[in-house]
Amino acid sequence: MNILILGADGYLGWPTALFFEQRGHNVYLVDDCSKRELELELGVSPIAPIVDFSDRGWLLTNDHPYHIDLASDGAYDILVSILAGREIDTVIHYAEQPSAPYSMRSRNACIATQQRNIIGTLNLMFAVRHVNPDIHIIKLGTMGEYGTPNIDIEEGWLDVEHNGRKDRVLYPKKPGSFYHLSKVADSNNLEFATRCWGLRVTDLNQGIVYGTSTGESKLGTDCGTSFHYDETFGTVLNRFIVQSLLKQYLSVYGVGGQTRGFLDIRDTLRCVEIAANIKAEPGEFRVRNQFTSQWSVNGLASLVTTSIGGKIYHHDNPRVEEEEHYYNAKNDSFLLDGLDPYPLNSVQVANMATNIEPYLDNVNLEWLKPRTLWRQ
Amino acid sequence: MNILILGADGYLGWPTALFFEQRGHNVYLVDDCSKRELELELGVSPIAPIVDFSDRGWLLTNDHPYHIDLASDGAYDILVSILAGREIDTVIHYAEQPSAPYSMRSRNACIATQQRNIIGTLNLMFAVRHVNPDIHIIKLGTMGEYGTPNIDIEEGWLDVEHNGRKDRVLYPKKPGSFYHLSKVADSNNLEFATRCWGLRVTDLNQGIVYGTSTGESKLGTDCGTSFHYDETFGTVLNRFIVQSLLKQYLSVYGVGGQTRGFLDIRDTLRCVEIAANIKAEPGEFRVRNQFTSQWSVNGLASLVTTSIGGKIYHHDNPRVEEEEHYYNAKNDSFLLDGLDPYPLNSVQVANMATNIEPYLDNVNLEWLKPRTLWRQ
Repeated sequence: MNILILGADGYLGWPTALFFEQRGHNVYLVDDCSKRELELELGVSPIAPIVDFSDRGWLLTNDHPYHIDLASDGAYDILVSILAGREIDTVIHYAEQPSAPYSMRSRNACIATQQRNIIGTLNLMFAVRHVNPDIHIIKLGTMGEYGTPNIDIEEGWLDVEHNGRKDRVLYPKKPGSFYHLSKVADSNNLEFATRCWGLRVTDLNQGIVYGTSTGESKLGTDCGTSFHYDETFGTVLNRFIVQSLLKQYLSVYGVGGQTRGFLDIRDTLRCVEIAANIKAEPGEFRVRNQFTSQWSVNGLASLVTTSIGGKIYHHDNPRVEEEEHYYNAKNDSFLLDGLDPYPLNSVQVANMATNIEPYLDNVNLEWLKPRTLWRQ
Repeated sequence: MNILILGADGYLGWPTALFFEQRGHNVYLVDDCSKRELELELGVSPIAPIVDFSDRGWLLTNDHPYHIDLASDGAYDILVSILAGREIDTVIHYAEQPSAPYSMRSRNACIATQQRNIIGTLNLMFAVRHVNPDIHIIKLGTMGEYGTPNIDIEEGWLDVEHNGRKDRVLYPKKPGSFYHLSKVADSNNLEFATRCWGLRVTDLNQGIVYGTSTGESKLGTDCGTSFHYDETFGTVLNRFIVQSLLKQYLSVYGVGGQTRGFLDIRDTLRCVEIAANIKAEPGEFRVRNQFTSQWSVNGLASLVTTSIGGKIYHHDNPRVEEEEHYYNAKNDSFLLDGLDPYPLNSVQVANMATNIEPYLDNVNLEWLKPRTLWRQ
């Protein structure tokens, strides 16, 4: 395959590039490095340094990494030239502002998030339509688009019976931040493009990804990916592991019954590979829920304290969210297509701890604290 | 009430301003006149000239009309100063790019539409939150957000039973243009703002409005509103009436079974008045479907030919839409709150025809033709 990876400098984009490159595909990289700029703006950084995007070009045999802001005026023309010139057949689209807390920081951050994500995705849709509607767009969305409904979460579509009539409708969504809302807008725009222009789109509603290494990260010192523990780009599991290793209390927000889907970064790569191998049909908006297990925040905290020690502290919840709720999300799609998930257990937590322990001196404890209040 | 009308220069905004002014409310006007700019860009105009926005200021006793692009960088600060300085308690938000065909013209038009509408509404939300979350936002959405599902269309929310469990979810939407998608994104952002910040929001999913005069349009020569018949800003009923009067064939797109909700412009005003009088509660996202009768395109064509003559021609459908479908949308909310609708019948069609007849010499027949193809 000729694969264009948008957001190739990110936590997932870079391992994805290495993964497909190692399997013999032609991989082309695009990023605007805006996440690195946001890190500078916020004064945070990954626990260990990562190489520059431009230095990730050694990976490529035929091309250089492209520095493109997909939401900018000129992005469309460049995308068209890459899609056509490189005969791209698959686009993997990670290129979005990825942080819910960032999107809730301020009006400017909210607007920047929605503008970047929505307009960038529109430019991609129009470029694909212009060059070749047969190009498969694999778009990374999030399980957070669904919120926490009191009914089972299906994979993108819901069979409804109402007043004696039936329809298959887009699953109703109730996201919990301006970031998640931008992803819902993307999904809606993409679904329309399948219906109106016959595009092929796979929308991956991904859970929270954990893990610091993939099969390819051992290929060289430049092949690792980022590990964030700060409130903006870190995840709850990363925070708990760092807190545990530093003998800090694990900060559970609120009651801790908040439940979400999670997956190993190696399963992200395998899911994206399965999605790429099984193209959506022309005009199909195929939605897959991409997670392998459900965990409550309390459950994760217990797992970490059991694995590597520590105690739990219930912090005022900075977010607006249900803290105890029903949660049963379906993830049959990838399992039926052969995914054999890595489990999240004490061994995996211990592995992550071992990987980050050499960098614990870099940790800034202030960054672990929640500063962004949803109701601020 | 102290009412801020956003989009006060428009087909509905201006009559709304006159309506509330005549009923003793303090009315403040905001518009960026972008619709007039789009008319220049497209080379179209209303069938009769309308006065400039600045000349509509005579209406106001205490203030001047504000020329503000709500999506611009400076809009937030100006909005904050108006909301606070004028002690606004109700915002009526019409200020969006209003044309589905325009949003489908090109990539630039699509992006301009989504950017203007989504970012403008975000600026309003943040300004209201900052000044006074108790301010009631009345947002004009559209029935087109729902699309044409095979089940009854409820008013914004749907009670779902699924796998033995129940929830009340946001009604799943399947809009038919980038314009309609922008309105869905607005609705989702606003619903989140009610949930997260406790804002009071009424979202009006309005049908297609017809009519050329209101109780206030007779107050003076400057009090009329615009009548468009072109493909971009005109509606199907306006087009049919002009075609009939000019002895042209009435151009039905496709089979003609497309069914939508419609309402008289005078009912728009009464609905908005009811919505303003019955504030949404703090934290409530109140959705009302604002239309009074359902018509298929064929039904409308028959009404016009019966009323004022003419013959029907089935034109290739420029849009991507179902041409024969189930459609049963609920509109109980306003009826229960006392709306007594004006009927759409031969008398009303004849009245509209009488009102526009003096201006028939202005009609450009080219503008009646559909040029924007959804699949272009």
